Amino acid sequence: MTNLDLERLQRRLRAARGEIEVDLVIGGGLVGNVYTGEWLRQDIALYDGIIVGVGDYPGPRVEVAGHYVLPGFIDGHSHLESSMLVPRELARTLVPLGTTTIVADPHEIANVWGTRGLDYLLAASQGLPLDIFFMLPSCVPASPLGTSGGRLEAADLSPYCPHPRVLGLAEVMNFPGVVAGEAHLLEKIALYPRGPVDGHAPLLSGKALNAYRLAGIGSDHECTELGEAQEKLRLGFALMIREGSLAKNLADLLPAVTPTTLGRSLLVTDDCQPEDLRRRGHLDHLLRQAVSLGLDPLSAITMVTLNPAGYFGLKDRGAIAPGLAADLVVLPDLKEFRVEKVWKQGRLVAEDGRLLPGVELPDTPVPFTPLQVASFDAEVFSPPVTGDLVKVIGLIPGQLLTNRLVLPAPVRNGRLGADVERDLLKLAVVERHHRSGRVGLGLVQGFGLKKGALASTVAHDSHNLVILGVNEPDMVAAARHLVELGGGLAVVAEGQVLADLPLPVAGLLSPAPLEEVAQAHGRLREAYRSLGGTLADPFMTLSFLSLEVIPALKLTDLGLVDVTRFEVVSLFGDD
Amino acid sequence: MTNLDLERLQRRLRAARGEIEVDLVIGGGLVGNVYTGEWLRQDIALYDGIIVGVGDYPGPRVEVAGHYVLPGFIDGHSHLESSMLVPRELARTLVPLGTTTIVADPHEIANVWGTRGLDYLLAASQGLPLDIFFMLPSCVPASPLGTSGGRLEAADLSPYCPHPRVLGLAEVMNFPGVVAGEAHLLEKIALYPRGPVDGHAPLLSGKALNAYRLAGIGSDHECTELGEAQEKLRLGFALMIREGSLAKNLADLLPAVTPTTLGRSLLVTDDCQPEDLRRRGHLDHLLRQAVSLGLDPLSAITMVTLNPAGYFGLKDRGAIAPGLAADLVVLPDLKEFRVEKVWKQGRLVAEDGRLLPGVELPDTPVPFTPLQVASFDAEVFSPPVTGDLVKVIGLIPGQLLTNRLVLPAPVRNGRLGADVERDLLKLAVVERHHRSGRVGLGLVQGFGLKKGALASTVAHDSHNLVILGVNEPDMVAAARHLVELGGGLAVVAEGQVLADLPLPVAGLLSPAPLEEVAQAHGRLREAYRSLGGTLADPFMTLSFLSLEVIPALKLTDLGLVDVTRFEVVSLFGDD
Repeated sequence: MTNLDLERLQRRLRAARGEIEVDLVIGGGLVGNVYTGEWLRQDIALYDGIIVGVGDYPGPRVEVAGHYVLPGFIDGHSHLESSMLVPRELARTLVPLGTTTIVADPHEIANVWGTRGLDYLLAASQGLPLDIFFMLPSCVPASPLGTSGGRLEAADLSPYCPHPRVLGLAEVMNFPGVVAGEAHLLEKIALYPRGPVDGHAPLLSGKALNAYRLAGIGSDHECTELGEAQEKLRLGFALMIREGSLAKNLADLLPAVTPTTLGRSLLVTDDCQPEDLRRRGHLDHLLRQAVSLGLDPLSAITMVTLNPAGYFGLKDRGAIAPGLAADLVVLPDLKEFRVEKVWKQGRLVAEDGRLLPGVELPDTPVPFTPLQVASFDAEVFSPPVTGDLVKVIGLIPGQLLTNRLVLPAPVRNGRLGADVERDLLKLAVVERHHRSGRVGLGLVQGFGLKKGALASTVAHDSHNLVILGVNEPDMVAAARHLVELGGGLAVVAEGQVLADLPLPVAGLLSPAPLEEVAQAHGRLREAYRSLGGTLADPFMTLSFLSLEVIPALKLTDLGLVDVTRFEVVSLFGDD
Repeated sequence: MTNLDLERLQRRLRAARGEIEVDLVIGGGLVGNVYTGEWLRQDIALYDGIIVGVGDYPGPRVEVAGHYVLPGFIDGHSHLESSMLVPRELARTLVPLGTTTIVADPHEIANVWGTRGLDYLLAASQGLPLDIFFMLPSCVPASPLGTSGGRLEAADLSPYCPHPRVLGLAEVMNFPGVVAGEAHLLEKIALYPRGPVDGHAPLLSGKALNAYRLAGIGSDHECTELGEAQEKLRLGFALMIREGSLAKNLADLLPAVTPTTLGRSLLVTDDCQPEDLRRRGHLDHLLRQAVSLGLDPLSAITMVTLNPAGYFGLKDRGAIAPGLAADLVVLPDLKEFRVEKVWKQGRLVAEDGRLLPGVELPDTPVPFTPLQVASFDAEVFSPPVTGDLVKVIGLIPGQLLTNRLVLPAPVRNGRLGADVERDLLKLAVVERHHRSGRVGLGLVQGFGLKKGALASTVAHDSHNLVILGVNEPDMVAAARHLVELGGGLAVVAEGQVLADLPLPVAGLLSPAPLEEVAQAHGRLREAYRSLGGTLADPFMTLSFLSLEVIPALKLTDLGLVDVTRFEVVSLFGDD
């Protein structure tokens, strides 16, 4: 302990003893005690960024009588890239909603930029009123059946372990590899012998689940069924109940939360897209949902405060008690969870849904980084037809799963065409990290587009350039527009860009505020609909057509992937 | 991770997957799941010292149908010196009772031997079927008003922090010093910024308690009142409910354990004396007590398994789940808690209350270490009388607190005498660590001895040589006998040793088995009674007469200590 640290602690102790004025007393509120499950009418004394005591303290006072005072909310599992916001804009968005800490798995940006992505996010998340902690991505790339920009082995990750905002190993999605004892995965897990190591093991059960737990996995956020959640809790997994933009498991899993299991249960967002953040909120939305489903409010609050703090070993937060960070949320009711005031490290940073002026949001400039795409022309999107039958990715409404369809091939001049009558559209994945020139080509049914093209550099998990179109020239135009932007989303018809959203940070994130990003999203959707599109969220759907670990048929830059067989298959024929 | 570690983990995973025979299946029992609070009829598969899975596994099988299977018990706070047993004999005693792990604060031996005491215990606790973890003693010596053998500052402790069996900082008994922000204490706490740092703060409340918590203290085991326990739980302290040989708080504090606070509540022994170990047991006794007081058995079990494991960050134990140590206890009922079988790291080590033959208990020889006592004679015990009145330590039955009495001085030939009529006996504390020749002398009322003398090298916390007697020659004889033994307990009359217990290890521990130590204790008590003594446990009472931090009047080698004034006072006069 340095002399400076010692003196600081001694000053804080003087404040705790009530011998000097504290910075602020938050008085008269009902304080949620997550240790005991009680609401206590107490004053809270803040000094030097922390809570120094509860009780009667001298100092300037803010009255919150008739209001509830809670610890700042902590999101225990999130991919911040889903928000499409850079950290400063994410902070501007989340803090007024009561979220003062998030634990992020940056595996999207790591798939594009590798460790450079981690470096960028660590730098860009410094000095914000939102504490962003990181778990080290464990599965980059997600599989060998696509080409990512980054590749992270244990040796790449270990230099990050000492970083004070790096907590553990992020969701080990390759659960079959863990169960089978693959060395490269066990070596990553061994970086954190005492955890936390997050899991991701949908429907894993029995002996395989025993093995997954034995290997050192400490949590799971992929449960979809009650019995599954209960089995995992019994084996000692922390249960992260996810209610995000895509997967919504709260209603199904809430019965697994009992007085005994509460302490090992968390509410997490996983993925939160811009428009959901704007419309529904963040953890405040999850609290609202949980309470509307019958969970008592303080238990729900414990699941986004004390429990994530405990699971991640964040000893300095998660409750209202002496010595903990003065991250506090004040709200008038426990049903709507409309956050009125937020203190971060003792400072009032947000009121009535807005970050206060004067709260600094340091900017981290990102140099323009061009997409690494080899030159290509329209021909690549219309290969010669070599069989009567063609495999088609069939969308299933509302799911990430797809059908594997086999249909008569649409032919035009001996080459593969689209067929709007049958809603068979061209889908291409252009490798964008290494200028390899590789393009995967396929057909997809379900987008409803009658003309034009869509393109995106958000395409899980490798985030290559994915293009959907009715005709090749528009596909080329859409792709070229994204190359100009350095990444993003675009809708093009007849050579004209109808709408776009630039995502210059790794082709994933925008430096613009949420409002702007969400509006651009709205314009993109309108443009898509003006071209005949029928899906609610076409770019979200598009972004998962390349995720080669979710059945049945997907497309990567290496070609069509039959996920059940876990191999690349030919486009033509019914093999 | 070394190749060896990797291969071992891969073999364990094969066992978890059920592909190879496990070492043992414990089948048909009702398994206590401390994560969910359920009793589950499950088989448990053990392999290579750990639990690899629950479910149906191939391998040799032991049937425990009709029995309960629990995780091995963990004592979260103990001073192993109270048992007077060296670690190997403590292991022989505790393991058959179901205790497979203890966390010890070795502050008694540290007061005698300093870091040499830590070194000895760390060495002597290796390779036992009982895992002994240590917390570093924070308050050695306990105060400046007595002379200890060892003195431990932060710089002395820090070399021990990396030891795999050293977990944190032991009970910081000098709570006023912590609250006041004394640097030497804050520096010790700073050795463990993430904890665990144990507390000891009887009746501390309000702002002072806020400060104590802020300083980084994470637990308390000194609560005696329900409201006190509740206040501490609300501030985030872990509640260690103590039920030991001296202090018994279970009945008073149990109402503080609610479904919400259960996870932060532990049952601990603190001090367990040899005869209590023999008669009542260990944590099995606490479980029995807790259940008889109305706590449901699995909640009580959680308080000696999962909760201490969680508090101390012992990630490898505390429950029955894949990857955890195969420390298991089997018993036929949840009322008597009579332990039938104990597995330690997958090996059956105890059955029906006895350690199994063949279980190794490595011996750690201790060289004879003489007491460092300067030569003295009888005269030192009968100083000239310099006033009519004398201060007398008045025993209060059943308490460590004493009265400060002022009575007419018993005089013999102008020197201080004893007075058996008024039950005023001589009490001397001879400094035994540095050959300083210092002797503190006083009178005590309440032992009832009519002749002879008692002597002991167990005298909290400095463990000097304490002697109680009716006449000086017997006091000298008793003391000299202990010097010959290198420490221990003795009863002497008319120059003859009536009974003794050698404690050659620092004057605190015996290398003999529990049975022998307890029998010696019985003989000592009988000898004491044969001399007119009336107390139930005279040596225990004697051992606390030198503890200068418990009011009102105590005696150290520096003289009489008025604890309320916290200073040495003169023997004669009413000042």
